[in-house]
Amino acid sequence: MFGHLGAMVRARAIQNESVVLRSLLEVGESMSALTDRQQVLELVLREARRLAIAEAGTLYVLRENRLKFVAVQNDRLDISQVSRGLLGHELPVSGESLAGFVAMTGLAMNIEDTYSLPAGTSFRIDREFDAALRYSTRSVLAMPLICPGGPCVGVLEFINHIDSAGNVGPFPAEGIAGLESLAAMAAVTVYNHLLQDQLRQAHLDTIMRLAVAAEFRDDDTGEHVRRISRSSAMIARRMGLGESQVELLQWASPMHDIGKIGIPDSILLKPGRLTDDERLVVQRHPQIGADILSDPQNELIAVAREVALSHHERWDGQGYPDRLAGTAIPLSGRIVCLADVLDALISKRCYKAAYPLDKVMGIIRDGRGSQFDPDVVDAFTDISPDVVEPYLRPAAD
Amino acid sequence: MFGHLGAMVRARAIQNESVVLRSLLEVGESMSALTDRQQVLELVLREARRLAIAEAGTLYVLRENRLKFVAVQNDRLDISQVSRGLLGHELPVSGESLAGFVAMTGLAMNIEDTYSLPAGTSFRIDREFDAALRYSTRSVLAMPLICPGGPCVGVLEFINHIDSAGNVGPFPAEGIAGLESLAAMAAVTVYNHLLQDQLRQAHLDTIMRLAVAAEFRDDDTGEHVRRISRSSAMIARRMGLGESQVELLQWASPMHDIGKIGIPDSILLKPGRLTDDERLVVQRHPQIGADILSDPQNELIAVAREVALSHHERWDGQGYPDRLAGTAIPLSGRIVCLADVLDALISKRCYKAAYPLDKVMGIIRDGRGSQFDPDVVDAFTDISPDVVEPYLRPAAD
Repeated sequence: MFGHLGAMVRARAIQNESVVLRSLLEVGESMSALTDRQQVLELVLREARRLAIAEAGTLYVLRENRLKFVAVQNDRLDISQVSRGLLGHELPVSGESLAGFVAMTGLAMNIEDTYSLPAGTSFRIDREFDAALRYSTRSVLAMPLICPGGPCVGVLEFINHIDSAGNVGPFPAEGIAGLESLAAMAAVTVYNHLLQDQLRQAHLDTIMRLAVAAEFRDDDTGEHVRRISRSSAMIARRMGLGESQVELLQWASPMHDIGKIGIPDSILLKPGRLTDDERLVVQRHPQIGADILSDPQNELIAVAREVALSHHERWDGQGYPDRLAGTAIPLSGRIVCLADVLDALISKRCYKAAYPLDKVMGIIRDGRGSQFDPDVVDAFTDISPDVVEPYLRPAAD
Repeated sequence: MFGHLGAMVRARAIQNESVVLRSLLEVGESMSALTDRQQVLELVLREARRLAIAEAGTLYVLRENRLKFVAVQNDRLDISQVSRGLLGHELPVSGESLAGFVAMTGLAMNIEDTYSLPAGTSFRIDREFDAALRYSTRSVLAMPLICPGGPCVGVLEFINHIDSAGNVGPFPAEGIAGLESLAAMAAVTVYNHLLQDQLRQAHLDTIMRLAVAAEFRDDDTGEHVRRISRSSAMIARRMGLGESQVELLQWASPMHDIGKIGIPDSILLKPGRLTDDERLVVQRHPQIGADILSDPQNELIAVAREVALSHHERWDGQGYPDRLAGTAIPLSGRIVCLADVLDALISKRCYKAAYPLDKVMGIIRDGRGSQFDPDVVDAFTDISPDVVEPYLRPAAD
């Protein structure tokens, strides 16, 4: 019986009788493809609809006590049209909507016909969607996404069950147990995403606070840091960078001047003009920043280091510390360079008044191809009203 | 057919024929109980063993190209004895072990009898375990934990299948498909844990770098920050705080002096004795730190704020800024207070030499009940050789 080496089993496609099991596995497995969050949510909804045999469906995620539409699918309507109207929208957790009622009570609701609800039903069905898109929402099954022993993290809504004859009918009660299993899996998926978002958010919060702290001596409001983060991300997005790269720059750019921590008060806070020697001391801050961020263990710190070191380089090679020119300067540094100069020009500083907007725009245009990467200037110019908007609010200084 | 409100379906325990499905769900659901990482790993292994009908098993997680034993179970041996010997141990990814071979090749291995391996087998079976514990590892099924489309994150090893007659026998080939499904789920669980650990690690890295930056002016090595983080965590653990609280303090304590960023060079870096006025300026740093960390959006920043504000309070109420006394001072502040004083006494500073260890211990003992919480002093005294160990290395300054 014993006595020989067992068969080597290659990992292979899972073959299993149970559709439920297969769907569950696909939902579970999809969690590993975390690089595209939206894709995972769409997959969860698609697998769930396949199991429920539903013509349409919506996945809501609960954040800050509001239900957000995160995935919307409909086999009978032009989905781009449907999504445009709904994605990003929110519902309160209340009887004002079916999904809100389900999230509020933690109860699944199986409605055979939304057009024949009895009087006094404790939630409202929104008819605007049907009217606007000439659609008929007949049967609806709405289930809370509850982590076992944990919080409600969202709602899964199935619309219009298609029966074996191909007609719209009520969702059969006997299929609900399997759907509940799937809802539990989906809840765990969504919960993991929420947890990861919370971790990312906490990290960003720490970066902002400590970057603000590092500039405390010459800007105790931290507005400079926040504005540069925002402007850099907007310009990067306009230049066509992927959302993960945009996010990296948004997080890394607040640390661009961290090296100023190494510049003595006597120079950093000097009211008048700097001597040549003093200017050389100030120009050490990119290298000090790069030293603080040296030997990066993750991508964020790597980009932050790149930005800290290169944000005073110039397109024409006349910048510092390394006199790099053109595309030898990292794109992150070229973008933050413009965002930094913009912020300096447009803000009031202890040694100068704020410049008027048209003068600022003129200076930046003049720097196109000399101080600045022409592509960065062009991207900024395309969206400049949005970028400068916070500077023009009465509260900004 | 239509025309009435469908049945309300209460969320209820999942009842399903399939053992595989139930196990998968329990593994999946367990992911939400993320508060106790070890419990989740134990559950994954237990469910997998139940499905495989295995007397024993091991779960390895792959980190930095080493396989770590993270869960070890054995129904026939005293598990505390087994765990003590193995948990925390590591194996290389290589043919030196079966698990290492599986992780290296990505292939599942089903071995009917480890005592009858043919000559030239490409991996080694460790016999020390069997010899030391008088155990007989006969059949082994080892499966890689591979995220679909993703990396290998670990290995699941089943030992000694129990057949229907209650005897040890080979793992039946027909059960492997179900186990592969479970391995895929387990892989996703482990992957999510790894991802969350990476996010936490990146956050900690940012805190350390920026906290070091904030102390750049009077300590350009950042050793002070690192040592205080370590000492505070050790004292907290000794005082019986839970691991999550210990970790919070470990992360929060590096920010204790962030408010020093608001103290001018002329005072912070003054070589001689401070005047009374200058001392009052220095004593503003807890409040400045609390302002930088105000309105915390997460627990980490909340603890950091607490520490920043209270680490110069004294047990006898003679500290600053709020002259709090006794347990009115947050425990976090009482712990970091001692760690901070210890570091100041034992380190060489620009204005003083390092004190010898016995003098430092004497000063801390003298402060028991006046400057310091007696319980904190006692906890520190219990473990002082370990705490002061980094200070006594030749490299430390």
